Amino acid sequence: MAGAVGAGLVAAGTAAPAFAREAGQPAAGGAPKPGERTVALLLFDGFTALDAVGPYEVLCRLPGVRVVTVGTRQSGPVRTDTGELSIVAERTMADVTSADVLLVPGGGMRGVGAAAADPAVQNWIRRIDRGTTWTTSVCTGALILGAAGVLRGVRATTHWGPAARTALEGYGAVVTQQRFVEHGKIITGAGVSAGIDMGLHLASRLSGEEVARAMQLGVEYDPAPPFDSGNAAKADERTKQLALKLLNDAAV
Amino acid sequence: MAGAVGAGLVAAGTAAPAFAREAGQPAAGGAPKPGERTVALLLFDGFTALDAVGPYEVLCRLPGVRVVTVGTRQSGPVRTDTGELSIVAERTMADVTSADVLLVPGGGMRGVGAAAADPAVQNWIRRIDRGTTWTTSVCTGALILGAAGVLRGVRATTHWGPAARTALEGYGAVVTQQRFVEHGKIITGAGVSAGIDMGLHLASRLSGEEVARAMQLGVEYDPAPPFDSGNAAKADERTKQLALKLLNDAAV
Repeated sequence: MAGAVGAGLVAAGTAAPAFAREAGQPAAGGAPKPGERTVALLLFDGFTALDAVGPYEVLCRLPGVRVVTVGTRQSGPVRTDTGELSIVAERTMADVTSADVLLVPGGGMRGVGAAAADPAVQNWIRRIDRGTTWTTSVCTGALILGAAGVLRGVRATTHWGPAARTALEGYGAVVTQQRFVEHGKIITGAGVSAGIDMGLHLASRLSGEEVARAMQLGVEYDPAPPFDSGNAAKADERTKQLALKLLNDAAV
Repeated sequence: MAGAVGAGLVAAGTAAPAFAREAGQPAAGGAPKPGERTVALLLFDGFTALDAVGPYEVLCRLPGVRVVTVGTRQSGPVRTDTGELSIVAERTMADVTSADVLLVPGGGMRGVGAAAADPAVQNWIRRIDRGTTWTTSVCTGALILGAAGVLRGVRATTHWGPAARTALEGYGAVVTQQRFVEHGKIITGAGVSAGIDMGLHLASRLSGEEVARAMQLGVEYDPAPPFDSGNAAKADERTKQLALKLLNDAAV
């Protein structure tokens, strides 16, 4: 499967996007090494930066694993949900025809709604999912997987917000409250920062526990949150409403 | 102070980089709103993505707070330490003449070493630091602050790796083992993922605890690491050596 992606990468690699040349940089990555396993990280307009970068940071250093950022229709900068930050997609859905791992981050409801309603995204996800060893999501990325029809009857999690959980149920998933959940080859993570926990679990599936434990130390993931407010099941209604307002007000 | 940054943003905003136009996207952000406080997030070649995106994600939605990504010499995509991911710098050090908060992420030793040895970076950090309410770093970003001379006699933390801690001591900082530490207006975070904890603490300083608690819930930061290996003080030597090898082997 990596071979097919490799072909796409080599082909696309011969034409670095103009912005990369103008910025005086080589196209990121280039051709994968033989036998390299690929993680296709879908970047759609309005994704949430930490949903993508949390798991990226613990997967990108796994020996023999290559993370490929995939834009929906073009390579180059993809805006996040706040419109303040952009991350570069190396390739496009047209370039990447298969992958060992599919990773779909979440985003604001506008961006997720648009991606979930896009037949090209749905078809690409179904095509990639057919060949993956693991199909994964973070936060509301589960809604995009759900819209593609790959979560029917699957135990899955998403952001704690009521709209996300209701939508995920609507796609036929069995919604759980877990930080991350593995069901068959599907691994879903809860909201935003849960992508780090999910990513470390995925790292152990890809490279074994010894390497995953070392990566957790490498990124010094020994959390000491300054507050006890991260769990919606324990949060008061006022904090929940303020959290949802902050998320909605910042969205573009 | 935000005004001065605003002027820079407006001026720079009149010429969106070519890559942004080619990608069919507006330049991110644009002119700040009146009274908006600015966080200048320095992106240097070889920074670590999660060091920057962890705190970004909990600061970017604070009411009246604007995060501005700052490239060292040019705007546009800046490569991270692995060379596989690039994040777009909206502005440059020349555009941004002051900020309310300075945030310096860490990176691989090559990128951090080059940034720490760059007189233009050192001068810009000293200039911005003179006007900040908070000067902050994540991971080995503390070494870049240290090279600029702003950490002498300051209690500070960095990545657990011996090289980083020794270098930080060399800059006259009093190195601690804390997840994040506030000393005067300097707030430093430990390795990589500690930027989320540091960022939430900074959020409470900027917007009060009620908002910071809500942001922690917004990004669902209720960590459940799959392993107990995130703390170097508790890790065995074999895991530490493997972690450092994985970090070094992936660096470009």
